[in-house]
Amino acid sequence: MKTSRRVIAHSSTLLTLGGLALLSFAGVAQAQMPASGMLQVPAKTLAAPPDVSPQLQKIIGAPLRTNWDIRPKTGEEWKPVADAGAAALIKNVPGMMERLKVKVEKTTIDGARAFIVTPETIAPANSNRQLIHMHGGCYVLNPGEASLPEALFMAGFGHIKVVSVEYRMPPEAYFPAALDDGITVYKALLKTMPAKNMAFFGTSAGGALVLEMGLKVKKLGSPMPGAIASGTPMSDVTKVGDTFSTNAMVDNVLVSPDGFCDAGAIVYANGHDMKDPLLSPVYGDMHGFPPTILTSGTRDLLLSDTVRVHRKLRQAGVEAALQVYEGMAHAHYIRDDTAPESKEAFEEIAGFFDHHLDK
Amino acid sequence: MKTSRRVIAHSSTLLTLGGLALLSFAGVAQAQMPASGMLQVPAKTLAAPPDVSPQLQKIIGAPLRTNWDIRPKTGEEWKPVADAGAAALIKNVPGMMERLKVKVEKTTIDGARAFIVTPETIAPANSNRQLIHMHGGCYVLNPGEASLPEALFMAGFGHIKVVSVEYRMPPEAYFPAALDDGITVYKALLKTMPAKNMAFFGTSAGGALVLEMGLKVKKLGSPMPGAIASGTPMSDVTKVGDTFSTNAMVDNVLVSPDGFCDAGAIVYANGHDMKDPLLSPVYGDMHGFPPTILTSGTRDLLLSDTVRVHRKLRQAGVEAALQVYEGMAHAHYIRDDTAPESKEAFEEIAGFFDHHLDK
Repeated sequence: MKTSRRVIAHSSTLLTLGGLALLSFAGVAQAQMPASGMLQVPAKTLAAPPDVSPQLQKIIGAPLRTNWDIRPKTGEEWKPVADAGAAALIKNVPGMMERLKVKVEKTTIDGARAFIVTPETIAPANSNRQLIHMHGGCYVLNPGEASLPEALFMAGFGHIKVVSVEYRMPPEAYFPAALDDGITVYKALLKTMPAKNMAFFGTSAGGALVLEMGLKVKKLGSPMPGAIASGTPMSDVTKVGDTFSTNAMVDNVLVSPDGFCDAGAIVYANGHDMKDPLLSPVYGDMHGFPPTILTSGTRDLLLSDTVRVHRKLRQAGVEAALQVYEGMAHAHYIRDDTAPESKEAFEEIAGFFDHHLDK
Repeated sequence: MKTSRRVIAHSSTLLTLGGLALLSFAGVAQAQMPASGMLQVPAKTLAAPPDVSPQLQKIIGAPLRTNWDIRPKTGEEWKPVADAGAAALIKNVPGMMERLKVKVEKTTIDGARAFIVTPETIAPANSNRQLIHMHGGCYVLNPGEASLPEALFMAGFGHIKVVSVEYRMPPEAYFPAALDDGITVYKALLKTMPAKNMAFFGTSAGGALVLEMGLKVKKLGSPMPGAIASGTPMSDVTKVGDTFSTNAMVDNVLVSPDGFCDAGAIVYANGHDMKDPLLSPVYGDMHGFPPTILTSGTRDLLLSDTVRVHRKLRQAGVEAALQVYEGMAHAHYIRDDTAPESKEAFEEIAGFFDHHLDK
């Protein structure tokens, strides 16, 4: 190893190298505009990316969600909307159950409604493990069997038993009913199995609820579960977050921070402070959380909601993993069980659980 | 635990629940449009996000990079551009060195130019470790001391010795000169320390180069380093990747897939196939890679380039971590050493290295 050395001094002689900056990677552009600078982004046309599966390409290439801009103002106004959406969604459930080789039983657990989702084959390592699922739907959508798809994906791809909480929603009940139902089920299951053999998982409102459950469990002094998986969580219903702007009209599911999902969260909150960590868990203290895996996509309106939680967890010293999928908008990974990206996302979560849960 | 159960059959009776879909989370919208559907995104105005440090807010709020759309066509045309940019950037280096408490020595290692960057305090665990740094700049920018900022950040925040390769660029040399210089330095350092005590790191072109070095080392049959940190890598210079579209004119550094950086990569490639994994490492076989940490931001034009590499690594069974920072465009984390997000990003990388490198 031949070396020749010259010390570069901390000296102003380097300044004599200065000249006109045509291009540089640092410290130049920001001098030209105040911090309050607004960026004008021209209109654009987006094609679905080519390097994803045909199934995902079709999902990404779909038009904006029908009626993304409706804003029902009461639980009663939401109900027919939720029922119609559920009816359409439930049509897909039997096929999913068959392809994913899972069965479903309806139950109540200490008064809370739930579904027990059991795969045909439980992995040997998972024989003494179970997961609690909190479904998505902006706290107002996906009642009954419409809550099931993600639970089916997890049980089927992960070969593990799932208890999916069919929590109360407006107009039946308002904040904190969904959270309370999740906690009720967890407390009941704690009598059947150690906390470290269980994990919480969910997407969207469900992704927020599993974080809210972590905060609540901590506050109650109950034992934390062994892991949490939070998918594209509605972690900030005050709508702070960069991708609420950058991915507006790019995410074909949520579409806008002022669309149906915002309206749903407001109805569920029922006048409660939206910045309460039990509604916007990104503002919660996450010290002591179990290992947590987060999932999002590059077109997700809630990508910022996801990565901000990831940073908060890491800052709190929590083991936290982030997966971001090419091209996916909000919760695209729970659309089509035949898309290889869906299998990949749930196998990552299953692997994370397997690594962190007790047996 | 009180339970009441009802089996939901795999049966078509559920289909009778079907009706008009006003809203649903799955399986509806994609039926309304062919996969080739294009999404029209209206013009928008973006403010910098509020929940980042004032320093980062200023960087995000800056206007588009000056002359982002120039496209020099030869190494000779790039040289004055690179020199002017470097002159402006180098002005910041002495202040960075002072604040980060690092010193720099210029050297050559088996004919390759390099800087040895040494922090005032080396962490005890790092006393027998060193890192190889490959700088960014689209393979044509940041010659000489302009290559240093990221190396200073890593050495200063990570308390570890860095060897920063001041690799040859056009018009001095073309593909694969940058890669060759990195390999030359690694081979020389292998004579001083076991591979598992070393890691590669770099951002942008440097983020690609450290992946290209991993592919090349594997091909040569040399021992892999203990870890790699790849920041917002130019992993696909064929420009496949969803955020090349979604974050165009949103990322205020790279701005467009057809801007200066693309022009730089074309000049460096010098007619070579852009899809060669030694230019577009996302197409490489990453089996056998060491643990790798990837860094990006929500406004990064290369967010897709980053997450696609993350997925490739995970699919190859590699331990791979992803960090995505709120609001950051391309490589914003190496702009201002006083921004807490910069410290956070490098401390995450340092922690990852500490976890995976031998002592």
